[in-house]
Amino acid sequence: MKVLFAAPDAMWPEWAPALRAACPEMELTRTGDPAGFDAIIYAPGGEIRDLSPYVNARLVQSLWAGVERIIDNPTLTQPLARMVDPGLARGMAEYCTGWTMRAHLGMDRYAQDGIWRNGTVPPLAPEREVVILGMGELGRAVAAMLAPIGFRLTGYSASGRPVEGVEVLARDGLDRALQRAQILIALLPDTPDTHNLLDADRLAQLPQGAWVINPGRGTLIDDDALRAALDRGHLGHAVLDVFRHEPLPADHPFWSHPRITVTPHIAADTRADSAARVVADNLRRAMSGRPILHLVDRARGY
Amino acid sequence: MKVLFAAPDAMWPEWAPALRAACPEMELTRTGDPAGFDAIIYAPGGEIRDLSPYVNARLVQSLWAGVERIIDNPTLTQPLARMVDPGLARGMAEYCTGWTMRAHLGMDRYAQDGIWRNGTVPPLAPEREVVILGMGELGRAVAAMLAPIGFRLTGYSASGRPVEGVEVLARDGLDRALQRAQILIALLPDTPDTHNLLDADRLAQLPQGAWVINPGRGTLIDDDALRAALDRGHLGHAVLDVFRHEPLPADHPFWSHPRITVTPHIAADTRADSAARVVADNLRRAMSGRPILHLVDRARGY
Repeated sequence: MKVLFAAPDAMWPEWAPALRAACPEMELTRTGDPAGFDAIIYAPGGEIRDLSPYVNARLVQSLWAGVERIIDNPTLTQPLARMVDPGLARGMAEYCTGWTMRAHLGMDRYAQDGIWRNGTVPPLAPEREVVILGMGELGRAVAAMLAPIGFRLTGYSASGRPVEGVEVLARDGLDRALQRAQILIALLPDTPDTHNLLDADRLAQLPQGAWVINPGRGTLIDDDALRAALDRGHLGHAVLDVFRHEPLPADHPFWSHPRITVTPHIAADTRADSAARVVADNLRRAMSGRPILHLVDRARGY
Repeated sequence: MKVLFAAPDAMWPEWAPALRAACPEMELTRTGDPAGFDAIIYAPGGEIRDLSPYVNARLVQSLWAGVERIIDNPTLTQPLARMVDPGLARGMAEYCTGWTMRAHLGMDRYAQDGIWRNGTVPPLAPEREVVILGMGELGRAVAAMLAPIGFRLTGYSASGRPVEGVEVLARDGLDRALQRAQILIALLPDTPDTHNLLDADRLAQLPQGAWVINPGRGTLIDDDALRAALDRGHLGHAVLDVFRHEPLPADHPFWSHPRITVTPHIAADTRADSAARVVADNLRRAMSGRPILHLVDRARGY
């Protein structure tokens, strides 16, 4: 099996050994006769843009969960699979759990200024409403980690597919979900439907003092509307891990906003070792004609 | 049933309604003929110090989990019960889980200074060693909340009694427990055995960069040794909720130490409503001669 590594050169030193260890029967290279490749391993930012000469490739396997930078490539005719890395989902769940706990416990009330602020006790988790927008692999992993802590969980997804321990609302339930979200976790994919989904009107639906945690996609939130809602004190805090332009420029106003915490797109790093095992499984499926996992539905965009 | 409320006056407005709601058959007062009381509800800081005239009291029910301020009172001859409040245990578990996640995720690495620090990925929870000193009601509640997140859990207790999902080490295992503690949670009771248990030698056993979270008792840690271990960079951070003198004085050096976070004894507030139900149950047990729950063993001191 001959496989093209179509990803930025900077990824090669970490990924090549992990991929070869997981799939020793694969011949992995960065160049070669396009018609000779059986599959392509892809990440955005590499040199290869035109996929039409790869006529014998039976699979384009993305190394990222998000495929918005390849889905609209008109030369892509091969089956495209998203990365669903168990390490990535776990990392995302841990990130969301950690920041949810920080919001829930009100950790940031305790300024280190010598004032003993022990007056009010925050509510316990069973009295705390956490809403997750997006109940795909990642949203479900987050819910599965938050549920044992005891939070009241609401999910929102296009399909409304049931998830144990979560009240899942579908399309017309978005406002209802937002209205109860003391802590909102945004995990929707980047599609035309979700661009600026959280605009001024929708942010206004959130309860006074709500926290917004966005480790999903930078396009989900209208940045100016978010800042306005924080500035006027309607929202309590925003934790943002994804941005329209990354790295977030050093002079971007998010960095210095007292109610915004910027993290550098670290919520859910794909981990080479666990991801490589997923790639190996999918390559073998494609070669032997078995069903490919995590195929992208181009109509939905994810 | 006549019950004396022997606690600070400031507690009366919150506690009296909760206690009366939970136990309507009780006549609850703050004064009266000592020999006429069937039981005493106690919290430190009230006016009553001499318990010898309360000859007919069948129970002294503490409203706090810690009983170090009454256990050595020579006039106490009645059975003494600790508070084991399910709300308190849940609050403690949430506090410990939140701060453990903050340590684990390295949240404090992300200074809001415009620098995009996405170089290193922290380990996931299954690669993180968390050690809980003290596996009583509170330690077990903390372990039960941390286990589903996936942490590697070690417990330490005098008894070594097994706890599911936790490797529990007993007395001579303390050094071994400390040596693996990337995150250490101190939840031991305040007894002569635990005074300054975490002294310079024991703190030196912790791995480089370890976090110490102490929501247990202020006497567990040698304060000067802790500061020295933080100052020389051996320990990463300390989160302290309990202190030898509370409120912690405004000019105490802990407040301004860059590697110490002070919280104002809020980890596990007893919640009047859930605690009152526990009190009512125990009063009824004492009156009817059934076994009293959470009796203090005076030889052990807790």
